[in-house]
Amino acid sequence: MNSYSINELKIDQAAEMTRSVSEGDIYIFAGVTGDFNPVHIDKAFAEKSIFGGRIAHGMLSAGFISAVLGTELPGVGCIYLSQQIKFRAPVEIGDTIRAVVTVTDINLEKNRVTLKTECINQDGVIAVDGQAVIMPVKK
Amino acid sequence: MNSYSINELKIDQAAEMTRSVSEGDIYIFAGVTGDFNPVHIDKAFAEKSIFGGRIAHGMLSAGFISAVLGTELPGVGCIYLSQQIKFRAPVEIGDTIRAVVTVTDINLEKNRVTLKTECINQDGVIAVDGQAVIMPVKK
Amino acid sequence: MNSYSINELKIDQAAEMTRSVSEGDIYIFAGVTGDFNPVHIDKAFAEKSIFGGRIAHGMLSAGFISAVLGTELPGVGCIYLSQQIKFRAPVEIGDTIRAVVTVTDINLEKNRVTLKTECINQDGVIAVDGQAVIMPVKK
Amino acid sequence: MNSYSINELKIDQAAEMTRSVSEGDIYIFAGVTGDFNPVHIDKAFAEKSIFGGRIAHGMLSAGFISAVLGTELPGVGCIYLSQQIKFRAPVEIGDTIRAVVTVTDINLEKNRVTLKTECINQDGVIAVDGQAVIMPVKK
Repeated sequence: MNSYSINELKIDQAAEMTRSVSEGDIYIFAGVTGDFNPVHIDKAFAEKSIFGGRIAHGMLSAGFISAVLGTELPGVGCIYLSQQIKFRAPVEIGDTIRAVVTVTDINLEKNRVTLKTECINQDGVIAVDGQAVIMPVKK
Repeated sequence: MNSYSINELKIDQAAEMTRSVSEGDIYIFAGVTGDFNPVHIDKAFAEKSIFGGRIAHGMLSAGFISAVLGTELPGVGCIYLSQQIKFRAPVEIGDTIRAVVTVTDINLEKNRVTLKTECINQDGVIAVDGQAVIMPVKK
Repeated sequence: MNSYSINELKIDQAAEMTRSVSEGDIYIFAGVTGDFNPVHIDKAFAEKSIFGGRIAHGMLSAGFISAVLGTELPGVGCIYLSQQIKFRAPVEIGDTIRAVVTVTDINLEKNRVTLKTECINQDGVIAVDGQAVIMPVKK
Repeated sequence: MNSYSINELKIDQAAEMTRSVSEGDIYIFAGVTGDFNPVHIDKAFAEKSIFGGRIAHGMLSAGFISAVLGTELPGVGCIYLSQQIKFRAPVEIGDTIRAVVTVTDINLEKNRVTLKTECINQDGVIAVDGQAVIMPVKK
């Protein structure tokens, strides 16, 4: 784990985390959030849907982004102010997702950093993008 | 569960879901997202932090919002396009969170609905707010 | 949490923990163990089964017993040697389960304690019983 | 998934499932069972324990056995009567566990089958063994 203060950050600094998404992850995410949307957990329903099969909850991918922000960049001790997310492509069972965050703006005065946030699958398809605003730890 | 097409939606239409957040929910969310930020799972660290104790992952609250959107309003069959989230106050172990979504804009031409999205705790404090853009099911 | 050595234990000493079992708990348990047996997670299948609806995994109840043994009696630091379990009645969504463990035999020489282990629902029905053999912590 | 009636089973018939155990799985199992025994979730405590580090809950391995029994052999529709478990060696983060069940006795009259049940790690060490008694589906 890392923990950067605003003075230690640079534009274009990046960090990432990679996770494979299993059938179990989707069931667990459904259980803990109460999101039993059948497109996530009902195989028969999902196969007849526009997606052709069960897809992961978008907020699971958002959770991967949050993990990188909170433990790697800016890392431990930061305060998460806001997140904007666009869901661009579905995440399917078996996909391996790279959650990448990249510093795009540093506001020293307000102690705020803006990061581009993306989830990219094993084929290079951007499943989720957006941006986060964070208050890094003070040292 | 509900499933509304765009023609069946009205401005100010609302739906909600209520969930209590347990210590277990936070550990499970950590496990499934890989977000082991100590402010969520390390009691000793969190007690010395600005929050004074372990707090829930912001994306857990976002997951509650996603649950309401995907199963109640607009409901089953909708496609989640984007979500903007502001984290306004921490969610603590034992808090009971009401996730409320309210239709604020309907674009019939593009088949898109915008909803205000909020998570409110048992004391009426808004923990999370923001807005979602959704493509409702076609009938 | 407690932590008893063998000298601090008495025959008939008991401890318990109470948990309500939610739909989410069952989905999470399915996800983390890979046990997607349809009697647990497929509403339509389960309603046509002998049980008349989805039931919790038996090992979820066994997990409640393990929780009491490992944190209350004999408690932290003990080593779990064996567990015998009989599944006597199904645990359904919404049931509140009391996991009770009671010391039945103490072997000072071998540092082993035997406990009766039961899960009892809100109506007093024994869902699970059996016995555990444990090596308590040495002090 | 399979679903055998008692007439379709043979002595020595076997089935298995393989799972790797992650840090996340252990946290999730802790969350859903309420088993926050520090030997499972407290890195500092566990490193000073006899195990030298965090170990998985024994009932997680038991859950893998239940998964094979309920979905592969005897499979869907069976009723789980009892399970005897011996915990022989710890399961550590990163271990890959093979849950193997093997038919050892068939009682046609009572419609009961007995199976040897084992969890074996990547080095061939038996972590868990025991036996299950099951009532297979009637056809």
